[in-house]
Amino acid sequence: MITSTANSRIRDLVKLKKSAKERSQRDVFLVEGPKMFREIPEDKLLEAYASESFAGSPAGRELLAGRHIKAEIVSDRVFEYLSDTRSPQGILAVVSQFHYTAPDLLGTQTPALLLVLENLQDPGNLGTILRTAEAAGVTGILLSRDCADLTNPKVTRSTMGSVFRVPFVYTDSLEKEILALKKQKVRLYAAHLKGSVEAFTQDYTGPTAFMIGNESRGLTENTARLADQAIRIPMHGQVESLNAAVASSILLYEACRQRLS
Amino acid sequence: MITSTANSRIRDLVKLKKSAKERSQRDVFLVEGPKMFREIPEDKLLEAYASESFAGSPAGRELLAGRHIKAEIVSDRVFEYLSDTRSPQGILAVVSQFHYTAPDLLGTQTPALLLVLENLQDPGNLGTILRTAEAAGVTGILLSRDCADLTNPKVTRSTMGSVFRVPFVYTDSLEKEILALKKQKVRLYAAHLKGSVEAFTQDYTGPTAFMIGNESRGLTENTARLADQAIRIPMHGQVESLNAAVASSILLYEACRQRLS
Repeated sequence: MITSTANSRIRDLVKLKKSAKERSQRDVFLVEGPKMFREIPEDKLLEAYASESFAGSPAGRELLAGRHIKAEIVSDRVFEYLSDTRSPQGILAVVSQFHYTAPDLLGTQTPALLLVLENLQDPGNLGTILRTAEAAGVTGILLSRDCADLTNPKVTRSTMGSVFRVPFVYTDSLEKEILALKKQKVRLYAAHLKGSVEAFTQDYTGPTAFMIGNESRGLTENTARLADQAIRIPMHGQVESLNAAVASSILLYEACRQRLS
Repeated sequence: MITSTANSRIRDLVKLKKSAKERSQRDVFLVEGPKMFREIPEDKLLEAYASESFAGSPAGRELLAGRHIKAEIVSDRVFEYLSDTRSPQGILAVVSQFHYTAPDLLGTQTPALLLVLENLQDPGNLGTILRTAEAAGVTGILLSRDCADLTNPKVTRSTMGSVFRVPFVYTDSLEKEILALKKQKVRLYAAHLKGSVEAFTQDYTGPTAFMIGNESRGLTENTARLADQAIRIPMHGQVESLNAAVASSILLYEACRQRLS
């Protein structure tokens, strides 16, 4: 059992928790909590750490028994030190990063349904978007490199497991990837406050991508002009804009609705 | 100019910031930041406090000039102490609470569109819901007493001003208010993971209320059974539930879409 926060493995884990660069170099990310742990694909699970009291509990024993690797036990105090949450739940894993390619985002079973995210900054928003995207039947998510980091523990957690299931690609050139999507006959819609048509008037049953921009500034002009169509979500009252996760949800579920009916 | 955090008015403001009971007893709440300040209805604005540097800036002078009351100037250090945000923006107001009655929630211009929220706990969620509700054309919001407090500075801020415009009522008895809505011919839909019909198959063009429950537990059985119809938002993949603000957005915008088309 590890009982000291000075232990070299504990120090390594803290580095992984804090540094995106460290996660990228080691090609891993951290996953915390029993619910998330259960959803880690077996071939991606590299290391597991359990608190002494969780490992000794019935729930802990059951959870850990089902895995091919043996969890390292750490004292409750060390686990609290490791944990990224206010109420540590006693289980933490090191997981291999996912490496999708742009073609993975198109799916195979249904007409493609993509989200293209530009400079999305809020970790909670990004997590909520991934979760909603999976529920709406999205085939993949394309993110500009300056979006929040899906391997950030806070983002990973707020996806509620969707991070393991929705294909995503970060790109240095949204423009290049968007042009490639167009070649694949994907129709691109830019969510824009000044969109010339209302979002609900369009047909999203064919291959479709929705482009969503930064929480306060929206899409950059350069990106917005690559869209086939700028669309506007109608707004009553004096609301100036919608939250980015809300706008994504409304558009994705409109596509979902059209595809179901 | 107030330069001491021991000043009695400053101590009173901190009490208002921290205590729901204090806000309720004095029948006021706090509003912070220039954007929110601009949207305070004139007859609700009771007191204003500006930091020395904001009051001296062109933006500050312009903002304060348009109001019937004179702002009290406080030192920048005292303002930081007062502020509820990490980047204080130099303006804070004491505002009268709103007192709507249940009939206000039905609106007058369109068929009623209500949200009924039960035990919604997350302050950010509640703020986002209010903002989205205004945009979707909601006529009013009914909240169980155990929902997060709309006069909590964090909630107020995250409404982006909708708290000044969307009628809302907190009630000790959701049941009593729901039965009253039924008498007014409002059709109540419970968002429920086990809803027997898909949300997109229903007609929301008549007087409609959507009932949304707690973030992790959903609606209580007692409340859910008061609904005319339990509806289910379709979900692909392995998602177990949607975020409460996302579910609200999808349902409200489905009603909005139907009413526009």
